[in-house]
Amino acid sequence: MSTRSKITYTFTDEAPALATYSLLPIVKAFAASADIDVETRDISLAGRIIASFADQLDSSQPVEDELAQLAVLATSPDANIIKLPNISASVPQLKGAIAELQAQGFAVPDFPEDPQTDAEKEVRARYSKVLGSAVNPVLREGNSDRRAPAAVKAYARKHPHSMGKWSMASQSHADYMRGGDFFSSEQSFTMPQAGDVRIEFVGKDGKVELKKQLSLKEGEVFDGMFMSCNKLRAFFEKTLQDCKETGVMWSLHVKATMMKVSHPIVFGHAVSVYYKDVFEKHGALFEELGVNPNNGLSSVYDKIKSLPASQQEEILHDIHEVYSHRPEMAMVDSVKGITNLHIPSDVIVDASMPAMIRNSGQMWGRDGKQKDTKAVMPESTYARIYQEMINFCKTNGAFDPTTMGSVPNVGLMAQKAEEYGSHDKTFEMKADGIMRVVLADGTVKIQHEVEAGDIWRACQTKDAPIRDWVKLAVTRARQSGTPAVFWLDPERAHDRQLKLKVDAYLQEHDLNGLDIRVMDYNEAIRFSMERMIRGKDTISVTGNVLRDYLTDLFPIMELGTSAKMLSIVPLMAGGGMYETGAGGSAPKHVQQLIEENHLRWDSLGEFLALAVSLEETGIKTDNRKAKLLGTTLDAATGKLLDNNKSPSRKTGELDNRGSHFYLALYWAEALATQSEDAALRERFSKLASTLAEQEATIVAELNAVQGSPVDIGGYYRSNPELTSQVMRPSNTFNAAIDALIQG
Amino acid sequence: MSTRSKITYTFTDEAPALATYSLLPIVKAFAASADIDVETRDISLAGRIIASFADQLDSSQPVEDELAQLAVLATSPDANIIKLPNISASVPQLKGAIAELQAQGFAVPDFPEDPQTDAEKEVRARYSKVLGSAVNPVLREGNSDRRAPAAVKAYARKHPHSMGKWSMASQSHADYMRGGDFFSSEQSFTMPQAGDVRIEFVGKDGKVELKKQLSLKEGEVFDGMFMSCNKLRAFFEKTLQDCKETGVMWSLHVKATMMKVSHPIVFGHAVSVYYKDVFEKHGALFEELGVNPNNGLSSVYDKIKSLPASQQEEILHDIHEVYSHRPEMAMVDSVKGITNLHIPSDVIVDASMPAMIRNSGQMWGRDGKQKDTKAVMPESTYARIYQEMINFCKTNGAFDPTTMGSVPNVGLMAQKAEEYGSHDKTFEMKADGIMRVVLADGTVKIQHEVEAGDIWRACQTKDAPIRDWVKLAVTRARQSGTPAVFWLDPERAHDRQLKLKVDAYLQEHDLNGLDIRVMDYNEAIRFSMERMIRGKDTISVTGNVLRDYLTDLFPIMELGTSAKMLSIVPLMAGGGMYETGAGGSAPKHVQQLIEENHLRWDSLGEFLALAVSLEETGIKTDNRKAKLLGTTLDAATGKLLDNNKSPSRKTGELDNRGSHFYLALYWAEALATQSEDAALRERFSKLASTLAEQEATIVAELNAVQGSPVDIGGYYRSNPELTSQVMRPSNTFNAAIDALIQG
Repeated sequence: MSTRSKITYTFTDEAPALATYSLLPIVKAFAASADIDVETRDISLAGRIIASFADQLDSSQPVEDELAQLAVLATSPDANIIKLPNISASVPQLKGAIAELQAQGFAVPDFPEDPQTDAEKEVRARYSKVLGSAVNPVLREGNSDRRAPAAVKAYARKHPHSMGKWSMASQSHADYMRGGDFFSSEQSFTMPQAGDVRIEFVGKDGKVELKKQLSLKEGEVFDGMFMSCNKLRAFFEKTLQDCKETGVMWSLHVKATMMKVSHPIVFGHAVSVYYKDVFEKHGALFEELGVNPNNGLSSVYDKIKSLPASQQEEILHDIHEVYSHRPEMAMVDSVKGITNLHIPSDVIVDASMPAMIRNSGQMWGRDGKQKDTKAVMPESTYARIYQEMINFCKTNGAFDPTTMGSVPNVGLMAQKAEEYGSHDKTFEMKADGIMRVVLADGTVKIQHEVEAGDIWRACQTKDAPIRDWVKLAVTRARQSGTPAVFWLDPERAHDRQLKLKVDAYLQEHDLNGLDIRVMDYNEAIRFSMERMIRGKDTISVTGNVLRDYLTDLFPIMELGTSAKMLSIVPLMAGGGMYETGAGGSAPKHVQQLIEENHLRWDSLGEFLALAVSLEETGIKTDNRKAKLLGTTLDAATGKLLDNNKSPSRKTGELDNRGSHFYLALYWAEALATQSEDAALRERFSKLASTLAEQEATIVAELNAVQGSPVDIGGYYRSNPELTSQVMRPSNTFNAAIDALIQG
Repeated sequence: MSTRSKITYTFTDEAPALATYSLLPIVKAFAASADIDVETRDISLAGRIIASFADQLDSSQPVEDELAQLAVLATSPDANIIKLPNISASVPQLKGAIAELQAQGFAVPDFPEDPQTDAEKEVRARYSKVLGSAVNPVLREGNSDRRAPAAVKAYARKHPHSMGKWSMASQSHADYMRGGDFFSSEQSFTMPQAGDVRIEFVGKDGKVELKKQLSLKEGEVFDGMFMSCNKLRAFFEKTLQDCKETGVMWSLHVKATMMKVSHPIVFGHAVSVYYKDVFEKHGALFEELGVNPNNGLSSVYDKIKSLPASQQEEILHDIHEVYSHRPEMAMVDSVKGITNLHIPSDVIVDASMPAMIRNSGQMWGRDGKQKDTKAVMPESTYARIYQEMINFCKTNGAFDPTTMGSVPNVGLMAQKAEEYGSHDKTFEMKADGIMRVVLADGTVKIQHEVEAGDIWRACQTKDAPIRDWVKLAVTRARQSGTPAVFWLDPERAHDRQLKLKVDAYLQEHDLNGLDIRVMDYNEAIRFSMERMIRGKDTISVTGNVLRDYLTDLFPIMELGTSAKMLSIVPLMAGGGMYETGAGGSAPKHVQQLIEENHLRWDSLGEFLALAVSLEETGIKTDNRKAKLLGTTLDAATGKLLDNNKSPSRKTGELDNRGSHFYLALYWAEALATQSEDAALRERFSKLASTLAEQEATIVAELNAVQGSPVDIGGYYRSNPELTSQVMRPSNTFNAAIDALIQG
């Protein structure tokens, strides 16, 4: 007999959180029948802000740091976590959330843009932990296994998403720095034994400043690298001149959310180079006003509001003038005049580049028309893969979702591996000098001559995750019978260190009959694409950044979205975390719900994750009912896809809530018709027939509420009662689910 | 002691033949000092025409078939042949030569365009053997070893040729058929034992027509393939529409000279598709006039001359009308209005594509300006490598001659290997039906369903040349310490057969320490280019077509010309043939000589070939003097390059003849200062000092004649006395050389 077990379901933000109000009651009711409790943990942006200032709040207000609790759980063998997408907050988003919480009566402090006093610095430090990608690095105590579920792939082949045609004469391309960036300066070493390292800055005067001290483990790989500010700015200027000459539109693609320290600076340079005339002319004033280009041109608009109208007009006029001699810039929203440089979180490389490639290599111009584009991505390390894919599409045409193979990913991610854990080791140089990494015994392992403005960063990659990653790659290659390619560039110092470990750890496994290769990034993506257009699958085994990029890039080509991917984090401690796809255009979804009471969010990712989670629970706790819940949920998901019961984008048609109803119906039917467990069959037969009989009524009730605005009491922290009412509008359906719990 | 030995120097056409009048006396004089006779063999187009009709000529006229004699020599171990570039005659060229010979009193018959009587067919058959690439296939009784000599590479690094900048936004590309071409229909098999095969056409009525019977050797690889006429024409139309839409210029790149049966047909379809309106409207008239689109638009201009002026005007007007709705076409000569489609021999893919790539991916438009271009190359088999290089240049910029590595070639060529020996097995289908290849026992080995107009061809590749090719690749890899890549595409039936042999024959060699790989064409060129931009060399080991294409492509990037390559044919019988680079723009050179008495032809290829030839003679006949002549000639060539004594393009400056003088001077000096052979030292000391003393006089004499027109008595067959006088205008220099012979 199995004992009660637990699945932890995360409560996050925006559309996924709204959907949770509808889906979770169903899931809880079904899971209870297998003695599984489904508990929630609030890791929303609002929740994390509140938890950060728990000591300063009214004692009646919720204060638990549920993210910290989850992080502890992730290191336990019992962990079984369903992780929904959450906000990686940019500064503007953070400020929005703070304002909303303050309005709701939470005494959280303002965000100090330019902290001066110790108190302000303390507040800023707390908020820094909330900024950007603050959740995943904490929870991801395992590497990443992402793939297209068979049902989803089959559906995509039958119902292919639209793919823009590619012209061989397309002018679009990805442009990147040739020297002067992180790639060309990377140095790397492996710790022969555990010990401390110091990151130091040595000034021109010889004075040594300790930037950071760290304790490294044995076998840990440590990298140092920097991007030259002067070369970065010269590069931006060159790309602008080039676009001006060739008539190709200019666009910028960085990841200011995830790379929350280095990329906002890169983004800021793009802003101040593009609008050079404005920043030069009004430099002193902007300084005074606290304009920060790293927050985008919106920072200018924002800060100049305090100025007299005539002065505002002059600045707006000067901004407008810039457009007359700068090349056309890609727009985020051409109707509202929101450019690529408006705020740093609008264009995120791993989503924006696949979108561009899917769209014939084009982005949208000021006139709302799509145009060939120079995609500017300063970091050459990763930008090259996009240029390779663009060249491939020019030569071979757009990918064909009806025939193409798949590129699943095994990604090195655990314990904040590589660049994605570099934020606390990233520094913008205040002066010329030397940055160096020194061992406890004084040995200098890494040394760079830097100039003021350069961005220096260090990355850590622990040995145990690497070993686990190699094991996961071999396991996946074996289970899927698919070639696996380690993407390691012999021209990168870091990858050379990794290659040594990969070679060694591969020897720990039976490789007989497996096709496991090591290729540089260009070779690897080309090899994978050549196979892909011939219908063949290839596992990409990559570092952390490529994991993130590729698990958007390939799924968006194959499936039209990355949200439909199965995303498993086999935790190193033995537990499992099941992630449910990307946030995508979640903000627009919330807006549509509030304005028209229609939620187009597709919970497919949750369905897929939940099925694996239930199966794993069943296996680990020897709970056959749980396994059965998992396999029947998979069957129900397949049927949902086949019957086209995913949410429509159009108000008045089936939305997220209706889709959940059909999932419940199909899931109940699958349980009612299985022959493995009589108790479950009986329990769900009643629900299945009730739901089938009431289908028309329920769908009518669900659709009837659509079309009018609703109030959910907040964006970042909506009112739970109001939201639940909005998200569960069918009394008939609610009653059926409630009856299951009681029954 | 060595006995007298012999070097056979070919007498060819155009500029190389003119240069021979100046260079050969020098070479003979130097070689005599090592007991080497230098004899000539006339393999010029005119000579070959005359030999073909020897039976019909005045008995006093020269009649020996020197090409046939040379072919016999090539299969002897004593062969030591210096092979200069010769004309691969197109029909217009052939007709020009015939007219000239007739005017000179040779009773050679007219070229029968449309032979009807048996006599006409007999004449046509004789001329067919003269057409196109008729010399190399006969002489090339060995595979090919081509590389950039160290001195030439060093010179190119010090004095880089111009390279057009590449823009990442370039719209240029290579476009090719996706299905319906030779690539997609290729079938291949290997003869398990010697035997006959029949190539048969089976009509819709079941009637079997024998197209060709052949005796194959054991181990011979035999391929059949076809290009669909309908798909080819649809492809051309699509490329034209695409250019019209994208504004990219249209250009065609085939090799109608070498691929003398299949490519003129392909070219003809391009003409009749581009000028579709004209050919449709005037179809019946054109038929009557004997217009043949395979000869280019010039055929229309030519044939309509017999029409009344008003009718001519109408046709010319209709041709002009075409340009208003077809895309702009690349020009061969924009001043004279000569387009890509004027005559089939103007644009030859292996020269035109490197020129385009070197020129920023652009060709010249009607207005004389360079523009982004669609390079149309129907055969996808080989076109893909150009698209790969174009993508590479878009991404990485133009190649840099000062730093780039080299891609030498080991090419499978002997005994008319592959497509280059397919001319007698190429058929344009007259009706729908089946083409098949049948063994003597009736087994059908290859079968294709074809339609009227399709181009079907078979290729042979004998086993011994393949084995020799593998051996040569291993030898070159060993001697040069360079990785060698076999370019074999697993998606090609022919290459799969070759791969089996390569794998087997590699086992016959010691591969220890060698880096020998097999890659498909895209992989191979990409691998080679990635190494090249990092300064590394990579041997390309390829089939016959790629040999031809790559030994222009890479040298033109590396050295600015392929004429400076060392091109050795280690003959399978044990002899050696030393080829001296490409013809290039030889016709323009002759024109300049006749109009301005300046010959810009660079004999560097002859110098390099001669040095290897002398060294080989020395080794084979144990003639130390010969070896010394070789090494000193190499030193002289290096000095010539260093001192910039190559011919200038400008009339009035040092030309081919002056360059020969400096070669003689430096060669004599090298011999006069060596310490290995006292006799030679003494013999050449006098010449060295004479030439050094008379340098100013000789150069003045050589330059003084320039600027006025000269008469050499013919283009295809110039008058030997007149030409010799023109090419040896310095009495001082002539006297010094004569003195050496006597001396």
